[in-house]
Amino acid sequence: MRVELYELIGARSQRYSIYAWRTRMALAQKGVAFQSVPVRISDKAAIAFSGQDKVPILRVDDAVVADSWTIAGEIEARWSAEPSLFGGPAGLTFARFVNTWTDRTLIPHVAPMLMLDVVGGVDAGDAAHMRRQMEASFRKSLEEMAAAREQALKGFRRALEPARAVLRTQDFLAGPAPAYADHILFGLFQWARVSSPFDLLDRDDPIAGWRARLLDAYGGFARSEPAHPDAAA
Amino acid sequence: MRVELYELIGARSQRYSIYAWRTRMALAQKGVAFQSVPVRISDKAAIAFSGQDKVPILRVDDAVVADSWTIAGEIEARWSAEPSLFGGPAGLTFARFVNTWTDRTLIPHVAPMLMLDVVGGVDAGDAAHMRRQMEASFRKSLEEMAAAREQALKGFRRALEPARAVLRTQDFLAGPAPAYADHILFGLFQWARVSSPFDLLDRDDPIAGWRARLLDAYGGFARSEPAHPDAAA
Repeated sequence: MRVELYELIGARSQRYSIYAWRTRMALAQKGVAFQSVPVRISDKAAIAFSGQDKVPILRVDDAVVADSWTIAGEIEARWSAEPSLFGGPAGLTFARFVNTWTDRTLIPHVAPMLMLDVVGGVDAGDAAHMRRQMEASFRKSLEEMAAAREQALKGFRRALEPARAVLRTQDFLAGPAPAYADHILFGLFQWARVSSPFDLLDRDDPIAGWRARLLDAYGGFARSEPAHPDAAA
Repeated sequence: MRVELYELIGARSQRYSIYAWRTRMALAQKGVAFQSVPVRISDKAAIAFSGQDKVPILRVDDAVVADSWTIAGEIEARWSAEPSLFGGPAGLTFARFVNTWTDRTLIPHVAPMLMLDVVGGVDAGDAAHMRRQMEASFRKSLEEMAAAREQALKGFRRALEPARAVLRTQDFLAGPAPAYADHILFGLFQWARVSSPFDLLDRDDPIAGWRARLLDAYGGFARSEPAHPDAAA
């Protein structure tokens, strides 16, 4: 069986996509070996085979699935004998909730803070595309948004409180072991770690401890992706 | 067995507490008959027996429990043979997440919109107390906050998106039947329904359909509490 993940890649060959990291961690949880196929945002021809224009895309032999949430369902169904990504109906509901919460509440907090760093680490064409999109959406320059990030950080940390409440009582959002609810939120922190030296969390935040546990999970799978070169050790 | 719920009550004898409604719905789900004991915020002496100064308080014979989340755990343990409030570890995690999300993300959106109406429906002493607390916390007058509510409504409706995503796929947050995750969020809407004629939801919002199902649940238990007298039918 050939498993390929088409995913965004930056100028240092870093894998920085929030959404691809959800899929990467899901595959790691299932113990599925896969080949990463790098894609630039500007290179639509490379993913034309998928019949749509977004990454990540998971290709398993001739089956092609796009959209990280849909991909998670495909992975769960295809490798159903391995530890579940969701752990039953309540876990699936929780993961769905966390998925939308991350996308609609957290990412709008974080993207303005970090996007200047993100575009600094990708090809010129991709950088111009991201800058246009972000500046149109937030009606500010990336430089203005970055300058305001110490203030914006407070709102982001407040918004994390529901996850913090859970992580004060158990090691992972999914329970004693990580699963897809964790991978969803972790993708955001891994994107930040790979793209920017700016740390989003206080050292003694329960979420920082959880993030370290996910970096260590699956034999240090996520930690093996290098952090931003200017990050504190 | 004597079961009493000490809870805030307004000038029209309306039961308007967000937190008490979580407990009320949990008791209704378990089929537990209880007596409501009205408390004014200003009347600390009435609840001194509990050793703390917050309502709701659940008293079962001589056992006294305060704080809605702690009360939910007590109800679940005491009436464990009845349908579960949580439905297992993943459901408990989800409820904990929704509890903090409602308290820390949603209530700060809604309280400024509705508090002027809320204080209009309680005793003068309680009204003065709530006004002082809210105006100190938001650094605006209740009148200014109410005047901005059409704008604030947009942020609140956006913040609801994670619940909406779940309710597009199933009837209740907890699954095919309501449970405590639903009661948590419902408490907010019931507080709004009882305290204000201002409707927080579009008619075609999936959350409006869910709200109606909860008003109908348990023999129309929540619907039997009268809506604000100026509310549209």
